Amino acid sequence: MPETAAFNPPERILMGPGPSGANPRVVRAMGAPLVGHLDPEFLKIMDSIRVMLRQVFRTQNEVSLATPGTGTSGMEAAVMNLVQPGDKVVAGVCGYFGDRIVQMAERAGGVVTRVNAPWGSPVDAGDIEKAVKATGNVKLVTVVHAETSTGVRQPIEPISKIAHDNGALLLVDCVTSLGGVPVEIDAWGADAAYSGTQKCLSAPPGVAPVTISPRAWDAIRAREVPSNTWYLDLQLLESYWDSRRAYHHTAPISMIYALHEALALVLEEGLENRWARHEKHGRALQGGLEAMGLALHADAAYRLPVLTTVRIPEGVNDMEVRGALLKRHGIEVGGGLGDLRGKVWRVGLMGESSTPGNVLLFLSALGRILREQGFKADIRGAQREAATQLS
Amino acid sequence: MPETAAFNPPERILMGPGPSGANPRVVRAMGAPLVGHLDPEFLKIMDSIRVMLRQVFRTQNEVSLATPGTGTSGMEAAVMNLVQPGDKVVAGVCGYFGDRIVQMAERAGGVVTRVNAPWGSPVDAGDIEKAVKATGNVKLVTVVHAETSTGVRQPIEPISKIAHDNGALLLVDCVTSLGGVPVEIDAWGADAAYSGTQKCLSAPPGVAPVTISPRAWDAIRAREVPSNTWYLDLQLLESYWDSRRAYHHTAPISMIYALHEALALVLEEGLENRWARHEKHGRALQGGLEAMGLALHADAAYRLPVLTTVRIPEGVNDMEVRGALLKRHGIEVGGGLGDLRGKVWRVGLMGESSTPGNVLLFLSALGRILREQGFKADIRGAQREAATQLS
Repeated sequence: MPETAAFNPPERILMGPGPSGANPRVVRAMGAPLVGHLDPEFLKIMDSIRVMLRQVFRTQNEVSLATPGTGTSGMEAAVMNLVQPGDKVVAGVCGYFGDRIVQMAERAGGVVTRVNAPWGSPVDAGDIEKAVKATGNVKLVTVVHAETSTGVRQPIEPISKIAHDNGALLLVDCVTSLGGVPVEIDAWGADAAYSGTQKCLSAPPGVAPVTISPRAWDAIRAREVPSNTWYLDLQLLESYWDSRRAYHHTAPISMIYALHEALALVLEEGLENRWARHEKHGRALQGGLEAMGLALHADAAYRLPVLTTVRIPEGVNDMEVRGALLKRHGIEVGGGLGDLRGKVWRVGLMGESSTPGNVLLFLSALGRILREQGFKADIRGAQREAATQLS
Repeated sequence: MPETAAFNPPERILMGPGPSGANPRVVRAMGAPLVGHLDPEFLKIMDSIRVMLRQVFRTQNEVSLATPGTGTSGMEAAVMNLVQPGDKVVAGVCGYFGDRIVQMAERAGGVVTRVNAPWGSPVDAGDIEKAVKATGNVKLVTVVHAETSTGVRQPIEPISKIAHDNGALLLVDCVTSLGGVPVEIDAWGADAAYSGTQKCLSAPPGVAPVTISPRAWDAIRAREVPSNTWYLDLQLLESYWDSRRAYHHTAPISMIYALHEALALVLEEGLENRWARHEKHGRALQGGLEAMGLALHADAAYRLPVLTTVRIPEGVNDMEVRGALLKRHGIEVGGGLGDLRGKVWRVGLMGESSTPGNVLLFLSALGRILREQGFKADIRGAQREAATQLS
């Protein structure tokens, strides 16, 4: 096949850790006529996005914008702008993405103290407090609200209090939580947060919502040396997103259209309704998986509804199961990352993908494939449990 | 209007410095079903893109990929990966984008010697040679092939020879040239080059083609400290793009679809045909503008066909003219950047926007608006000259 041949990607049921299925309205929005990045009509769309981002993040932060890259660009923008060489950082790490923040903070010249927790539990607030006090003069505490590698929800408020009581700023990774589970930037007192579009916002990946508190913004503006990154320099980005409209980069126009439509869909559904939908479907899936005889990996008290880690039973082949799900049913789920490689599957129910139909289909498909692998899956029990919770 | 209201961006004729009009096939490609970033079908699309990028860049470079951001992300990836703290860089600067490279190289810790030329001329190879020899032990020479702020084409081969004769690597910005005017990475001996999708490739902005020579790749792998950027770390990006398929970021799936279709369109048209098309339409526009009585800003011997800078005549109001073009005709052109602010218009004829119709329409529309402003535009002369060149 020549490289230029038309490609026809298959229809998938996206139940991995992201991307989730895109809403058809979002896909259609990407096809709207392309305009320039300084076109007055485009600037109006950017202004609308700022207002909607504040609503979805639950914040009054003036500095609320989208960085021109995938979710990781939001992480890098937040970390590289907040951390100056020599700054002390205390990083909560209980999974792959907490560790990624550490790597970025170190590359920015930060002196990082890691506070680890087992992959499957949240970071302990007491451990953070000890580290912050022992380190002294901490500039930034970092934490992941919804750890995509483990399916754990981190309680934010206790850590926020510790950070602020000790004069530090709090950075919260909301990549997998925004639009799916309650995110309350102002109520938490989070100083910097970012997300992706391809998780619970149900747009294709490509831009990253970011919000910065006035206090964090002061810290960024007080930098003695500019951030190493020019592309993701938040002061330059904000000078384009705010009324100055200073040219910085050529905005990813079609992806900005997608984000606008995705945020509009979130607000039309209503944040509370959307959270309830994700909660209901996630709990039905988890109930069904346990009824099937499988073990869930994340601590029960901290399980996210939007991303479930399932332990792969003894004797079951990871790749064969995921391959069969994909080939026979078009269902994508994720494998384990880092320490959990080969040990768990990651099953997402995010945004458009969070439907009752996907819960039931997945339980049915997985159950049959597991039986072929010699695992005695209780398919009927799983369906009964899930159906009860969904009704 | 509530922020969530449907937006309906108007149909524009994109004749600014980018984005150019997107080909309808590219727009349609973005609507293809979303698949995961590790889906086997998606990995095939990435492989096709690698092959096509090499054809379009005219290179055998194994490391040819797309960074997950707009053209400036390609610039940042190339600069931040090649420049280590203390590295000596000689940067040719004859416009806004040459200066942007300097800013990035300095943020990466490079010690930069600027070699300036007037905005409207290319950088003089002799000046580069003097600076390289005077500096000594230069790691990297940087130059902009098509300076989007001035419309000047930089001859690359003399500078490539100087760089290599002195043991330095050569970085070339091809944002506005790739797919529109001849780019010959291997014949030039360029060691690093990048582009954008929204210029002569005629896709929406959002990903950036990058290619790295084996020699530059050795330099990147020999770094003593990792690059400050994790998001744009080329070694991490390559470990996802090559056969290792190591998870790094969630690829901007829909934009990658767009890039695939855009590259296929370039190769279907044929690079030589495409260069000839851009050349013909650009010269017709430039001939028409001069026949109208306007002065072109860039040195005649180095004028790009894809981006033309026109001097704003005395007594003519920049914003009023651009506003009238946009409001009456839906035509976007660019204003001047930096030193040329208020002094020139930047008129692009790139990719889909490079058509005979756009040349004639623009000359007609501009001529009438200039006459209202009191400038005696020779509209008939302009049309005659352009039509002759187009025939």
